[in-house]
Amino acid sequence: MTGFRSSSSGISRRRALFATAATATGAASAISGSLAAVQPLAIAPGSVLLFQGDSITDAGRDRNQPAANHAAALGRGYPMLTAAAVLAEHPQLNLKVLNRGISGNKVPDLEARWQADCLDLKPAVLSILIGVNDIWHKLNGKYDGTPEVYRDSFAALLQRTREALPNLTLVICEPFVLRCGAVNDTWFPEFETRRAFAEQVAKEANALWVPFQKKFDEAVAGGTAPNYWAADGVHPTPAGHALMAQTWRAVVGI
Amino acid sequence: MTGFRSSSSGISRRRALFATAATATGAASAISGSLAAVQPLAIAPGSVLLFQGDSITDAGRDRNQPAANHAAALGRGYPMLTAAAVLAEHPQLNLKVLNRGISGNKVPDLEARWQADCLDLKPAVLSILIGVNDIWHKLNGKYDGTPEVYRDSFAALLQRTREALPNLTLVICEPFVLRCGAVNDTWFPEFETRRAFAEQVAKEANALWVPFQKKFDEAVAGGTAPNYWAADGVHPTPAGHALMAQTWRAVVGI
Repeated sequence: MTGFRSSSSGISRRRALFATAATATGAASAISGSLAAVQPLAIAPGSVLLFQGDSITDAGRDRNQPAANHAAALGRGYPMLTAAAVLAEHPQLNLKVLNRGISGNKVPDLEARWQADCLDLKPAVLSILIGVNDIWHKLNGKYDGTPEVYRDSFAALLQRTREALPNLTLVICEPFVLRCGAVNDTWFPEFETRRAFAEQVAKEANALWVPFQKKFDEAVAGGTAPNYWAADGVHPTPAGHALMAQTWRAVVGI
Repeated sequence: MTGFRSSSSGISRRRALFATAATATGAASAISGSLAAVQPLAIAPGSVLLFQGDSITDAGRDRNQPAANHAAALGRGYPMLTAAAVLAEHPQLNLKVLNRGISGNKVPDLEARWQADCLDLKPAVLSILIGVNDIWHKLNGKYDGTPEVYRDSFAALLQRTREALPNLTLVICEPFVLRCGAVNDTWFPEFETRRAFAEQVAKEANALWVPFQKKFDEAVAGGTAPNYWAADGVHPTPAGHALMAQTWRAVVGI
């Protein structure tokens, strides 16, 4: 399991094992501002790739189906799109892809189920997208965690994860919203504060950073209506999930 | 709607409107034996792209959801994977992607619902994958249609479709099986006969031909176990669906 890992770095950049479609098509070059240069990720055969998060990650998955690489268990979102493409292009890796996102989750919800739903699964690659409910539920009066609580509890979760899984490749996804649907001016500037905290936490944890907000902003700047990518401003359409999957693969290098 | 169409050809090859990711990555060059050279498909904004077929196309879709581009309505298979990628890469086209595959369907089942589930939807691009139940149900003693019945009824369905939708881009997908699970020696050589009939019917209808069997055969020849692509020999895994989506896009040129 450790044969491919670089001892010269505490973070998850490894020597090249295979080239990726994303890199080959130049998709990677469209990503700027990420924490790490894009390069292929080396990963040991049989490794577990785990997606964690809220409803955006959950994406309608069958939570009664624990099996890896199972269509219904992967949901209908970016984890499924990413898994299907990676599994098709790299059959020799025999990867085990799991989705454990749960709709409505905030950082404290991840904390409460982290041992069973993350650490016990022993992922080699862990991707986390969390934060939109931490503000949304606060705006709705159902939660009182401040941006600082989000930052500090998220950082503590990553610290706990690093200690339990020291060789982990950690991928933190940028929380994002589109300015439509449920997302109105009351979300700002607090959402920006939280987004910046997520990036800070990712950097301090030596995680790869997947700039979803940046990519959606670019897509909207290109002339597409925000609701083309997320009808309610929060939950992506299939097009939005595909943009996320492409961005994720370009950053992670698989 | 007809501005992009070439009057010099009765089939659906149009002048280039946009380049495709599949072409750019060289994926197209891996496809040989298709009926048409790979080139970008020109398609008018707002066009309907319809996927038709059996359970492989259905892939767990919500049949109570008729909306285009809807995650649950698209299912968990190659139509979803294709739709998500195409919608993300070509937002300016404003495509309406529909899935009307129904589990268990054979050619006569398509015939019975063709007016409502195909012609009335006025697709600009129609993709059909049908044939595995036509033999499977016969092997199980639940149906008595011969390969010639499959060929002739499939051809008649396409003729009816061409007459109703003369400007249609027609895409016929190769029926395929993997040699594992439910697929044993009793399927052969009849399955090969039916597969060849499908190709003949597609050619006579001036359809694009998507060589799924050929691609799966290549994948298995590359050293991957057949059940990696379709656990029961018939229904693809996420990896299998992704291979199909990549193949489909490379041939169709979108």
